[in-house]
Parts: sequence; C-alpha cells; structure tokens
Amino acid sequence: MNYPKTLLKLITLLKKFPGVGGKSAERFAFKMIEWDEALLKDMAHTIENIKKELLFCSSCGAMIEEEPCAFCDKEKRDTSRICIVTSFKDVFLIEEMRTYKGLYHVLGGIISPLHGKDIAPEKMALLRKRILENQVAEIIIALDPTLEGDATSLYIKEKLTDNADLIISRLALGIPMGSSLDYIDQGTLAFAFSGRSKY
Amino acid sequence: MNYPKTLLKLITLLKKFPGVGGKSAERFAFKMIEWDEALLKDMAHTIENIKKELLFCSSCGAMIEEEPCAFCDKEKRDTSRICIVTSFKDVFLIEEMRTYKGLYHVLGGIISPLHGKDIAPEKMALLRKRILENQVAEIIIALDPTLEGDATSLYIKEKLTDNADLIISRLALGIPMGSSLDYIDQGTLAFAFSGRSKY
Repeated sequence: MNYPKTLLKLITLLKKFPGVGGKSAERFAFKMIEWDEALLKDMAHTIENIKKELLFCSSCGAMIEEEPCAFCDKEKRDTSRICIVTSFKDVFLIEEMRTYKGLYHVLGGIISPLHGKDIAPEKMALLRKRILENQVAEIIIALDPTLEGDATSLYIKEKLTDNADLIISRLALGIPMGSSLDYIDQGTLAFAFSGRSKY
Repeated sequence: MNYPKTLLKLITLLKKFPGVGGKSAERFAFKMIEWDEALLKDMAHTIENIKKELLFCSSCGAMIEEEPCAFCDKEKRDTSRICIVTSFKDVFLIEEMRTYKGLYHVLGGIISPLHGKDIAPEKMALLRKRILENQVAEIIIALDPTLEGDATSLYIKEKLTDNADLIISRLALGIPMGSSLDYIDQGTLAFAFSGRSKY
C-alpha cells in the first residue's frame, strides 16, 4: 500500500514480532494511531528501557526483579537439586508448577551444529562449580526432547560422569495429558510404553 | 506468571494490540528482549512520534505524507467525483484498486445511536462546500453495508437531495468473488439477484 513513510516504517518494525505478518502489522499500526499520546509515550519508554531494567542472575542466569536472585536464595530453595534449562523463559514455566523448589541453571542456548551453536565452556565450568559449592545430589535436565536438546543433554551427562555420586535425570517422555493415542507419534508412544508405571 | 514488573508492564501494553492475548503478548515481549538496543530504540522512537509525523488533509481528511494533499490535487484527480468513506484507512484500500481517480471525503466515523455517535455537522458542511467548489457530479458512498453504515448512507443522501443534479451512488451489494452460494446469507443473495447484470 502507498502509506506515508512513517507508517510504513512502523509496520515494518511491527512485522518483527513473532507470527505477525503484513496484515496484522497494519492493523496494529492503525490501532496505534487511535491511541492517545500518553499511551504511545508510555509504550515507547517501556520498549526503550526494557533491556536496561531487566536483570539476569550472574550465577543461575535467570531473569530477576532485583539482586540478590530469589531463585538462588539458599534459605528458601532446595540447594541439593539443579534444573538445567535452555532459556530464562523456561524458569518461569517450571516455577508455575509450584512443585519444584530447587536451583536453576540457564544454558542460554543448546548445541546445534547446523547453526554453529555450542554450549559456552564457562557455562559448564560454572555448573561444575555450583554442583561442588552446593553439594548438589541431582541434576535435572529439562531441555526440549528434540535432536538438538537430546545432543545437549548427552553432552552435559558426559561432562558430569566423573562425579559418581551425582544423579542425572531428565524429564519423562510420554503422552501429554488430555491428548489421544490416535495423534501421538510412534517415538513418543514407544517411550510412554517403556516408561510405564505401576497403576 | 511471576515475571519482573518491567516485563509485566510491557506484556500489558502489548495486549492492547487488536487480537493479541496474554500468550502472544508474552511471546512478543520475550522476542523483544532478544533484540539489540538499536532496534528497541528505533521502535520506541517511531512509536513515540507516529502521531506527530502523520498528517491529515484538512479538506478530505485522508492521511497524507506531506502538504499539499495528493488526493486533493486538482491537476491529477477527477474533481467531478467524491467518494465518501468511514476512515482514512479506506482511502488506501480504494487507492489500491488503481481505478478510482476522484476525490475522497473521510467521515471519521458513522452514525451509531447505540454508541452515541453522530456525524459532525462541520464534516457535512465541508462536504457541501467541496461539492459546490468542485462542481461535483457524483457522490459515491462507500460505507460498510452494516446497520450503522446504512443509516449513515441514508442520512448523507437525505442531506444532499436539495441538489437535484447530483448523482448519489453506493457500492454494489452482491456475492464476493471466489465465494460459494452455499455460504452467502439470504440478504446478500437477494441483493445479488435484484442487482443482476446482463451477461
């Protein structure tokens, strides 16, 4: 469309949101023109400062409100367990369960030879340091059950085998709640079968 | 979720986009955290200034790049026709057809007794002035075929009946291209029937 340049620029920027195409970006932009100045200013200010105002724990890597990190609080958390996740987003997902009270270790990425990505050696060194410091008994690997996630899980497991007392576990593979066997792939079904529990 | 306050605020603001719920707003916000500072700054600046940088023609009400309004250009446009539309967005939609070369008149809203909305008297006065000034021969009413749109069309028609030479037309009602009779409502089908043309 032959929109004014400023509007075209806004639409181009809005298309950078995940899953937002041209039509949605246009709708967003036209809606924004209807907003009052105060709301536009508020949004502009929030966007400009979002990265400055967010903190990440230097130990576990979780996104935090303020120092010290609440997820690393030795008084309130069970320091004998560390859950390894890909991204700081996953910390919130696991917290939402309200059952896990252990520590976290955010990798910040997984091994992906196709994209030339690897685990930063300092992330692994920090993990080993935290395991020793907290006398950790169990490492729970909570990575996505994908090719890259599995490769990363295996890498982490191998890096930690020298510690014989450490239990290394990973999330159960199986049928998600509320789904139907009809729609489950053979691989998942096989895992659900072999991992069956007494009823 | 127990997100930091700044992130929660950004999510709340993003939910103001049309059709964006909590889950999408979260995805947008997490994506934004991955953007670099320059992109965030660019977006913030564009949002803050969008309303200041957009111009609206004081005559036709269209959104324009710069003064004078290209849609009102007497050299390039057919001044004997004025197309009446609800919003400045509609101007772009009609322009995209590339067949209409006449003038526009943006109402900025339609009559809606339920929402206490009416056509501003100065909008109608301006329309009458433009009809006289340009010796307009035809008024094309291009409002949505809804209850409110029809009421507004009727109101405009009645306000202009004193000018006997003026042709007042409205967009054809009928079956949209590519659709199936199965899915067309009875009202539309009746209009398509009565408005049939020789083949």
